[in-house]
Amino acid sequence: MPVSAEFDHLRVVLVDARNPLNIGAAARAMSNFGFQHLRVVNPYDVAFQGARSAVGAAAVLANAEKYETVAEAVADCALVVGTTAIGHRDLQHSLQRLEAGAPVIRGHLASGPCALLFGSEKFGLSNQDMSHCHWLMHIPTREEHVSMNLGQAVAVCLYELMRDPGAIAEPQKGSPASSAEVERITETLLTALRASGYPKLNSSDSFEGAIRRLVRRLHLQQGDAEFLLGMLRQMVWKMKNSGEGEG
Amino acid sequence: MPVSAEFDHLRVVLVDARNPLNIGAAARAMSNFGFQHLRVVNPYDVAFQGARSAVGAAAVLANAEKYETVAEAVADCALVVGTTAIGHRDLQHSLQRLEAGAPVIRGHLASGPCALLFGSEKFGLSNQDMSHCHWLMHIPTREEHVSMNLGQAVAVCLYELMRDPGAIAEPQKGSPASSAEVERITETLLTALRASGYPKLNSSDSFEGAIRRLVRRLHLQQGDAEFLLGMLRQMVWKMKNSGEGEG
Repeated sequence: MPVSAEFDHLRVVLVDARNPLNIGAAARAMSNFGFQHLRVVNPYDVAFQGARSAVGAAAVLANAEKYETVAEAVADCALVVGTTAIGHRDLQHSLQRLEAGAPVIRGHLASGPCALLFGSEKFGLSNQDMSHCHWLMHIPTREEHVSMNLGQAVAVCLYELMRDPGAIAEPQKGSPASSAEVERITETLLTALRASGYPKLNSSDSFEGAIRRLVRRLHLQQGDAEFLLGMLRQMVWKMKNSGEGEG
Repeated sequence: MPVSAEFDHLRVVLVDARNPLNIGAAARAMSNFGFQHLRVVNPYDVAFQGARSAVGAAAVLANAEKYETVAEAVADCALVVGTTAIGHRDLQHSLQRLEAGAPVIRGHLASGPCALLFGSEKFGLSNQDMSHCHWLMHIPTREEHVSMNLGQAVAVCLYELMRDPGAIAEPQKGSPASSAEVERITETLLTALRASGYPKLNSSDSFEGAIRRLVRRLHLQQGDAEFLLGMLRQMVWKMKNSGEGEG
């Protein structure tokens, strides 16, 4: 899975990031999900240098670009979206949930560069930063705890951008056992129960049916049916020959 | 948004976690997305104590339960799902992409406890750990960089579990300007251009139409139309009265 042309159009912009671990974590998530262009605005320089030397995201961080202002960092982008924890209700911008906003961003990525802005760990994006945005997006966190870790917020947003809504469940491994195999298990289990002197066996006419239904509820795989049959046969053999080899 | 009964059924199980920052980050993402039950198996004790004193996830961490074995940590769960970076191809289990696996887990959460297992930062889940799982799930990362940071992996999985596939885009703020307002802008802009001596104005019959279409492409909001009209009128006034106040 190489980096796609559309993903190549996204610029992840970290504004006023202060913690080198968070810058490194953002870069790592970008590399995991196939996004390359990291831009940092006014980073705490020590943090930025520290992040560059972090493990696991070398290429993205090595190519990260540093800007003095948000305006310069988004200059080539036709769409600029800011992320917010929506703690404050007096936003001047339209606000979209991540699930609804991401498809709009994907649509724009097909035609040209877009920027996704993340604010500082402590204060988020300032009103000044937001004034460069066309609209805002928020991750649907719990109202009692809206504020996410920066690296995790970047990871979740990029995951939503790249996730495949059409991904379908893989079939379970192996093929189901045939009815003949399942019935052999049923018979061998009944034989084993008889050999063990299981008490209910003769007291109920419907017992055999109950066992048959139980075995079918196991939805056995082919290999597993053979595996079980072998175990049951060994136990039947042992029970029928018990005492012979014992001293 | 209180924690839902379904989410209350999820147990997030960190096996052999070594870094206190990652345990804290997992707890924080759980709190962000409304999941409460964190279980740690065989943690590096110093890390676990360190995480308990981390910022931002006090309740989840304070209630975290410590277990010696995976078997004990998942004992009450009817479904156990392991996460893997799918680096190794020789998995014995069925493997689902996160987008396809999460709906299955959600289905089970409605009826009872389920466990979602995450392995250590360095090695992931061992084969022994995986043998307690019904199936495995992977986050669709790039083949060249599959391994995610533990805290970010937890955040992305929980986001997928709680995301709302039916979330729809919010309408943009404000109401669009009426055609009358838009036409007033058009006329005032033409007046301003005439007053400025803009050259093309008289050279092309279609120029007025071009301006009219341009103004309509702006999709102006009601308040913005008035705002712009005021600016244009001020400029028209200044141009028509230019020289008067100047020395």
